[in-house]
Amino acid sequence: MAADLTLADDFKLAMRRLATTIAIITTGKQENWSGMAATAVMSVTSEPPTILVAVNRNASLSPVLQTEQRFCVNLLAERHQELVGIFSGGKKGFARFETGGWVASEEGLPVLPDAVASLICTTQLTLGVATHTLFVGQVQRIVNHPTIDPLIWVDGTFASAQRI
Amino acid sequence: MAADLTLADDFKLAMRRLATTIAIITTGKQENWSGMAATAVMSVTSEPPTILVAVNRNASLSPVLQTEQRFCVNLLAERHQELVGIFSGGKKGFARFETGGWVASEEGLPVLPDAVASLICTTQLTLGVATHTLFVGQVQRIVNHPTIDPLIWVDGTFASAQRI
Repeated sequence: MAADLTLADDFKLAMRRLATTIAIITTGKQENWSGMAATAVMSVTSEPPTILVAVNRNASLSPVLQTEQRFCVNLLAERHQELVGIFSGGKKGFARFETGGWVASEEGLPVLPDAVASLICTTQLTLGVATHTLFVGQVQRIVNHPTIDPLIWVDGTFASAQRI
Repeated sequence: MAADLTLADDFKLAMRRLATTIAIITTGKQENWSGMAATAVMSVTSEPPTILVAVNRNASLSPVLQTEQRFCVNLLAERHQELVGIFSGGKKGFARFETGGWVASEEGLPVLPDAVASLICTTQLTLGVATHTLFVGQVQRIVNHPTIDPLIWVDGTFASAQRI
């Protein structure tokens, strides 16, 4: 038991060391938009363009993702720090979309118009792993922003990427 | 076809916008150490501590991962830029481990002693997705470095995380 507690603590410390880009994962039709901030977003393959996200089964987003079978990954820029708080519990449900100027894609999905990149995906497969579900999404359409200034999460705080 | 080419191009541009921590994924027993640099590393859940990596089936690491059913994810620090070139094709096979002072874990896995974090995992499950295989690893043991200076890959270049 003591060993397990130590591993859990070590894991938290290790994940503070894994710098990630913060994204807002969205889904749902317009009256039922759902979204949450997440750092568990990964590129899987470019043939065909495929990404995956991990979502806690207790998150309000999870059942909507399961129903809709499509989602949008909006990679945040440094200017979007306020949205992280809103989409991490600061607001609930549709009220989260009152900030940021969200627009509907042609499928009705919420898209953040000035995201560093927004990737609209159809769910190709899902896989349960303990508390979470992996959603593997085949990318259907992408909107890229001209500037590249992703908002990074590292050591429990916001950061920007500085070329070295 | 033209639309597909555009999507592929857009995907490359989008992935330049996804800042990631660079890791070296290693596996194998001492005479058969295998490793590669990767950015497709993600935290899945903390209950129990679980991460996943995506590896191209054509990578020399892939069959060794399938055989060994365990691996180590070494999160790189800014001081490890040289290793990225070596573990991305600059050297082949065991010669990759001549640089960096690699040591064997008690299981015989290669561990980079001054990584920001090294996570030793047993493979819990694998899943093929097009050209790649996802390896979901349950974390067994972790070595964390006192300093947090992960080496970031963004926009085709190295970067450091600066608090904002």
